[in-house]
Amino acid sequence: MPEVVFPLDSTKRFTDQQLVGHNRWHPDIPAAVSVKPGDSFRVHCREWFDGAIHNDDSAVDVRDAPLSTVHVLSGPIAVEGAAPGDLLIVDILDVGPIPQEDSGPLAGQGWGYTGIFATENGGGFLTEQFPDAYKVIWDFTGGKATSRHVPRVEFTGIVHPGLMGTAPSAALLSKWNRREGDLIAQEPNRVPPLALPPLPQDAVLGTLNGKAFEKAASEAARTAPPRENGGNQDIKNFTKGTRVFYPVFVDGAKLSMGDLHFSQGDGEITFCGAIEMGGFIDLRVELIKGGMETYGVSENAIFMPGNTDPQYSEWLAFSGTSVTLGGTQHYLDSHLSYQRACLHAIDYLTKFGYSPEQAYMILGAAPIEGRLSGVVDIPNSCSTVYVPTAIFDFDVAPSAAGPTRIDPGMGVPKASF
Amino acid sequence: MPEVVFPLDSTKRFTDQQLVGHNRWHPDIPAAVSVKPGDSFRVHCREWFDGAIHNDDSAVDVRDAPLSTVHVLSGPIAVEGAAPGDLLIVDILDVGPIPQEDSGPLAGQGWGYTGIFATENGGGFLTEQFPDAYKVIWDFTGGKATSRHVPRVEFTGIVHPGLMGTAPSAALLSKWNRREGDLIAQEPNRVPPLALPPLPQDAVLGTLNGKAFEKAASEAARTAPPRENGGNQDIKNFTKGTRVFYPVFVDGAKLSMGDLHFSQGDGEITFCGAIEMGGFIDLRVELIKGGMETYGVSENAIFMPGNTDPQYSEWLAFSGTSVTLGGTQHYLDSHLSYQRACLHAIDYLTKFGYSPEQAYMILGAAPIEGRLSGVVDIPNSCSTVYVPTAIFDFDVAPSAAGPTRIDPGMGVPKASF
Amino acid sequence: MPEVVFPLDSTKRFTDQQLVGHNRWHPDIPAAVSVKPGDSFRVHCREWFDGAIHNDDSAVDVRDAPLSTVHVLSGPIAVEGAAPGDLLIVDILDVGPIPQEDSGPLAGQGWGYTGIFATENGGGFLTEQFPDAYKVIWDFTGGKATSRHVPRVEFTGIVHPGLMGTAPSAALLSKWNRREGDLIAQEPNRVPPLALPPLPQDAVLGTLNGKAFEKAASEAARTAPPRENGGNQDIKNFTKGTRVFYPVFVDGAKLSMGDLHFSQGDGEITFCGAIEMGGFIDLRVELIKGGMETYGVSENAIFMPGNTDPQYSEWLAFSGTSVTLGGTQHYLDSHLSYQRACLHAIDYLTKFGYSPEQAYMILGAAPIEGRLSGVVDIPNSCSTVYVPTAIFDFDVAPSAAGPTRIDPGMGVPKASF
Amino acid sequence: MPEVVFPLDSTKRFTDQQLVGHNRWHPDIPAAVSVKPGDSFRVHCREWFDGAIHNDDSAVDVRDAPLSTVHVLSGPIAVEGAAPGDLLIVDILDVGPIPQEDSGPLAGQGWGYTGIFATENGGGFLTEQFPDAYKVIWDFTGGKATSRHVPRVEFTGIVHPGLMGTAPSAALLSKWNRREGDLIAQEPNRVPPLALPPLPQDAVLGTLNGKAFEKAASEAARTAPPRENGGNQDIKNFTKGTRVFYPVFVDGAKLSMGDLHFSQGDGEITFCGAIEMGGFIDLRVELIKGGMETYGVSENAIFMPGNTDPQYSEWLAFSGTSVTLGGTQHYLDSHLSYQRACLHAIDYLTKFGYSPEQAYMILGAAPIEGRLSGVVDIPNSCSTVYVPTAIFDFDVAPSAAGPTRIDPGMGVPKASF
Repeated sequence: MPEVVFPLDSTKRFTDQQLVGHNRWHPDIPAAVSVKPGDSFRVHCREWFDGAIHNDDSAVDVRDAPLSTVHVLSGPIAVEGAAPGDLLIVDILDVGPIPQEDSGPLAGQGWGYTGIFATENGGGFLTEQFPDAYKVIWDFTGGKATSRHVPRVEFTGIVHPGLMGTAPSAALLSKWNRREGDLIAQEPNRVPPLALPPLPQDAVLGTLNGKAFEKAASEAARTAPPRENGGNQDIKNFTKGTRVFYPVFVDGAKLSMGDLHFSQGDGEITFCGAIEMGGFIDLRVELIKGGMETYGVSENAIFMPGNTDPQYSEWLAFSGTSVTLGGTQHYLDSHLSYQRACLHAIDYLTKFGYSPEQAYMILGAAPIEGRLSGVVDIPNSCSTVYVPTAIFDFDVAPSAAGPTRIDPGMGVPKASF
Repeated sequence: MPEVVFPLDSTKRFTDQQLVGHNRWHPDIPAAVSVKPGDSFRVHCREWFDGAIHNDDSAVDVRDAPLSTVHVLSGPIAVEGAAPGDLLIVDILDVGPIPQEDSGPLAGQGWGYTGIFATENGGGFLTEQFPDAYKVIWDFTGGKATSRHVPRVEFTGIVHPGLMGTAPSAALLSKWNRREGDLIAQEPNRVPPLALPPLPQDAVLGTLNGKAFEKAASEAARTAPPRENGGNQDIKNFTKGTRVFYPVFVDGAKLSMGDLHFSQGDGEITFCGAIEMGGFIDLRVELIKGGMETYGVSENAIFMPGNTDPQYSEWLAFSGTSVTLGGTQHYLDSHLSYQRACLHAIDYLTKFGYSPEQAYMILGAAPIEGRLSGVVDIPNSCSTVYVPTAIFDFDVAPSAAGPTRIDPGMGVPKASF
Repeated sequence: MPEVVFPLDSTKRFTDQQLVGHNRWHPDIPAAVSVKPGDSFRVHCREWFDGAIHNDDSAVDVRDAPLSTVHVLSGPIAVEGAAPGDLLIVDILDVGPIPQEDSGPLAGQGWGYTGIFATENGGGFLTEQFPDAYKVIWDFTGGKATSRHVPRVEFTGIVHPGLMGTAPSAALLSKWNRREGDLIAQEPNRVPPLALPPLPQDAVLGTLNGKAFEKAASEAARTAPPRENGGNQDIKNFTKGTRVFYPVFVDGAKLSMGDLHFSQGDGEITFCGAIEMGGFIDLRVELIKGGMETYGVSENAIFMPGNTDPQYSEWLAFSGTSVTLGGTQHYLDSHLSYQRACLHAIDYLTKFGYSPEQAYMILGAAPIEGRLSGVVDIPNSCSTVYVPTAIFDFDVAPSAAGPTRIDPGMGVPKASF
Repeated sequence: MPEVVFPLDSTKRFTDQQLVGHNRWHPDIPAAVSVKPGDSFRVHCREWFDGAIHNDDSAVDVRDAPLSTVHVLSGPIAVEGAAPGDLLIVDILDVGPIPQEDSGPLAGQGWGYTGIFATENGGGFLTEQFPDAYKVIWDFTGGKATSRHVPRVEFTGIVHPGLMGTAPSAALLSKWNRREGDLIAQEPNRVPPLALPPLPQDAVLGTLNGKAFEKAASEAARTAPPRENGGNQDIKNFTKGTRVFYPVFVDGAKLSMGDLHFSQGDGEITFCGAIEMGGFIDLRVELIKGGMETYGVSENAIFMPGNTDPQYSEWLAFSGTSVTLGGTQHYLDSHLSYQRACLHAIDYLTKFGYSPEQAYMILGAAPIEGRLSGVVDIPNSCSTVYVPTAIFDFDVAPSAAGPTRIDPGMGVPKASF
């Protein structure tokens, strides 16, 4: 096992740990630890809500989830010699649930959760169709996930960090705040909001304190969106064996990570659509000095995925176009066409006995593929979603015989405002 | 070989063939042929521009490509017993270039083309960055494509029909015209346009003639976009062995197809981004009576892809977010984030010596994967594009040694207005 | 389509064709045609018994199959400039059943056959357990095989040539005859024999005639076994897209091929275990001058398989060791351990309702994987056989519920001596 | 983490642990622990030589390796309710090197070894060509193996237990001793021997002692070969996610396991050809009562492999036939043909600069595929070996340009008698 450079105690809250991480992006957050190019090391990660979500059959905790506190990140980790303009190579050597703890109250201790967020508290990809809060608990056994809330489904986890990235420079942070502020200004009272401005409340900025803390907290970027530094990309293919190349914007690169997922479908569509958990990640870092210019990588991570992702060879696929459910034609809107493809998949699965929420949760958590199939055929983009048939223990293909009806069991816990 | 129910002669134009197909969608277009459930049959298909694009080193033909004439479809093929509400099962038994003809002046005779369209004539996914017309010729050998215009690249074709679908009902057609008309009305003079209204000029409607032709031509839908009936979905995974389930809207289903592609990346991003060709497609049809209701498939094809797509196991991937090149923040725009991911890939490949146009053409034609990785992390969606490294005959991964510089050769033919 | 350099007429026998091939290996057989390095070309191939096996429900033809006539090969094809010591690169551009003919009396016209040979006429891998003759007819649709004799099974063909190779030199031929003669001499009257000596009866040697024919026929090698020149290797992975490197032993290399298979499991275990058919193969040739020494390839083909083989991701596997059914311990005998693994698979499948012959035929024809798992653990080698579960339309995995019982239908036609 | 039912302390020898396992098969060895159907549990495993092989650059330890002491197995583990005739389902939930210990003197602590054994001490698959002892040390990082003794190679581990099985009944044990004794009697003084008879010296039989120990030690079977109970099958595909079905021969089944491998090629051809290590394995057990009869599994494990094995898509393959290097023809000997295929691969790799020993070690340890391609074409069987090209950091395919020459570095440590 590589040396644990960022240890966590599962019984303690994020801010009570030996090393305190951060939940905002800011260049002034001091590095918590330092490593050298060539080093391999282990980092512990809290689940993104720091234990606020429980292994039970109520969705009240998801309804009331404290979005101002996320994501509780481990880091920053300084890499010696890293300088702006470099590419930071990060090898994901291993990643998994909390090691040596397979039962307990904390997500990552043998279980994880998927949530649909209420429209009033973040919403989600299909929030118009699913305005309330829902929660599903998944149990991990043998690298596979099953749920008492979604019967007849089992799939191999495609374990990955939802969030990893380098620190922004002051200039880059400023650019983020300006452009996101401009967006918010277009419709400041929208629910859910168009973007999340800096929020000092609940900000955790490592060892920063006093005036420096106050200044940084007032301008630090929220961690929800992915940006030029990587961040919350939620790319399900950041699995073990993946090599990522991050642009470096500050001295030392200041790498941080968290939001581990046991599994996720493309898009993480239920908002908290992955199977969320705490756990560990083993990394090795290297530098390509001046690599941003050399390779034309001015922003956003590039990566080479690992070669041990779960293999499926039979898929049931759904397509959608950029026409709203209400019948309005949009222009080449791949986001909308993916929504429509996902809604088609949900409609289909309900014919087998699943509730719409169960179907939605499957799409969020299972290793589905979401593809931008057509993006130029005006006015309709075409998106497609591929569901591996082997995750069901019954035949899910259409046939003249009609669908098998399964017993949906207790269903998905729900909570409304 | 299954019986050829829709034959074509490579030396004759679309309208001079024994059976004349159509290039608009309309329920009144009479079936050209009829088949029974359980039948296997072969259909010949013209390349989408009916021979207007040539195997040479000039892009003038692409610049001046007659968009009013596309897509030259084979069909309609009536399926006996099919009625509105059914699901039509279509098995793609085989699909390929023009059989027994591997050289000649027609795309599909041993070669195909990929085009970037000028902004004034259709544009494309990255038309702001690439406003002119470009053309690349690909040669087919052994199921693989290479190009004199894009050296050092070779990939196995992922052959598929870009377009297949059933006829719309009159009501459905009316809905299309209304909603697309509404969109056009928002910005009627936009270049490229927001959508394409019915256009009697160059309309070909099978055997329809006289008043019936005139009426239908005035309201028939253009074939560019995918819609509820399938249509121009450009899903690269419609390969040999795929089973597609189409909703049926009119008696007999009236299946049509065309726009065969030797290969394509997800999105067909250069507009005419696939490798376009004429060829053949072998199909088998079956019905699930009342299947639309039984399986909740009210619109858009669902499908199960075949299992012989080309296999690659090492990928170089790029990510993008929904921020414009100019720095403006958009709200969860997966279309934009895929553009940015593709632009990142292009920037990267130019560091190896390719021109931007060559890199763009590779992304259009090679079997790249385009994924909707994150769609909920306000305000930034995250799209990713995966390029198989084995298609290059040099090492395309980043390293401390820096990129290999290749000789780009003659480059990509260009034509401007 | 590449130029057909070796055409065949499906209605004529092997010896009545425009170009006559050969069914023995001998350096003196004149080249039937000549090609140049870089050329692509098409070769037609007869099914290995030249039409003696029929699409019916009797196994009499298999029982009486004329082994003295096989394999009816197409060639030799001279490659200009090839000289002993070179490596001949052969790209398999495409391979398939008889083009444009999907029904008719000849295997390859939309159908093929798999045979178990009687012990008195060749025997097979499990001839002690299956001493009689059996035949199964497979129908080809959409690249998939099904059989009226083996219900509830369908699989994608892994199409390949069972036999391809260069001509031996006189010295190499002499070596073959000596060593195989030595083996035969150990037990000259064995049934089936240990090896097949030269046999002038039924020898076909292209255009060779007169004294030259008589001399060559008396010493030409039978085509059954694979040898240094490649030959009847029956490697199921010689699929479209494969590049093979053959050693060259005579001027012009004199490449020949035949014994096309629509599909086959590793080992081709029923003797005529592949799905036999006539058809076509498209090839491209190149030379590596002096490549045998440069790359240390003194004998036996090396190759790089194509990347479009059918993909399966769920397998049911069986293991065996080198102990006979009678309980005798053999020393590290991987042949025996593979027999035992296959017998275990057969025993298992019969519990689902298949007859032993049906199960054996499935293992012969479907794309099963046979692996040499352990070869050093004295005294038992361990071989394993992997059956893709998706080829069955019922659940074939073991469970507490016990096996589904299928209706075996008419079963496998049988003929005894 | 599942409960550790069989813990080991890395600093103590096998016989000094809290629970002592066994290194022979005998029904009288008492169960060390007991589990219930449905239980998940962790088992620690010693590397097979109990620490006798060191992380250094000498092969003296391999030359003198104490074969009488192997394999040091963990168990037996009794499964409540298991009775003769049942099938024991064993799910491999996870398997890996020694957890939390990535450096140290014991194989499994961040490293492992591959050995070629001297002819006088066990030999190996190619002992005639490699009569001396050799050792290679592999380092584990990020699930991948590299070696200072074999440069320019890196591959993802295909981690699995080399050995797992149930206890034999007294009758089954007796059968083993009889048949293996019969074999040994054919050539009692052979070096290496034909089989290994019971050997009281160095026998460890768990808690058995006194007369019971003496009796059992005199008749207990050696663990080297796989047999009806599974045992040392060395199947590289027993990876995480695999479900194995073992026949049960004694009450409680008495499952034991060990000989963990970080990686292995098909055949484990260098004898100690896998990358040997200590580590852990997480298992879950279930029963199919009476399953041996129900499913026709009278002996030898059947299994369904996991779906996360490392994926490679480009292979360089070699073939061999059953003719000895000396030119003698053998009859359908797949063992011999696999030897010849492996020797061809070795000859090939030496042309790139590797020593024969380095090439041999690569074939032993990397995830190569060994297939029984042809087993019926008298007199030559055809075996094939597939090497994934991506494990080399240079181009290993043949070309007209000739092979890249690599620097073989220090090479492989050797020790002779």
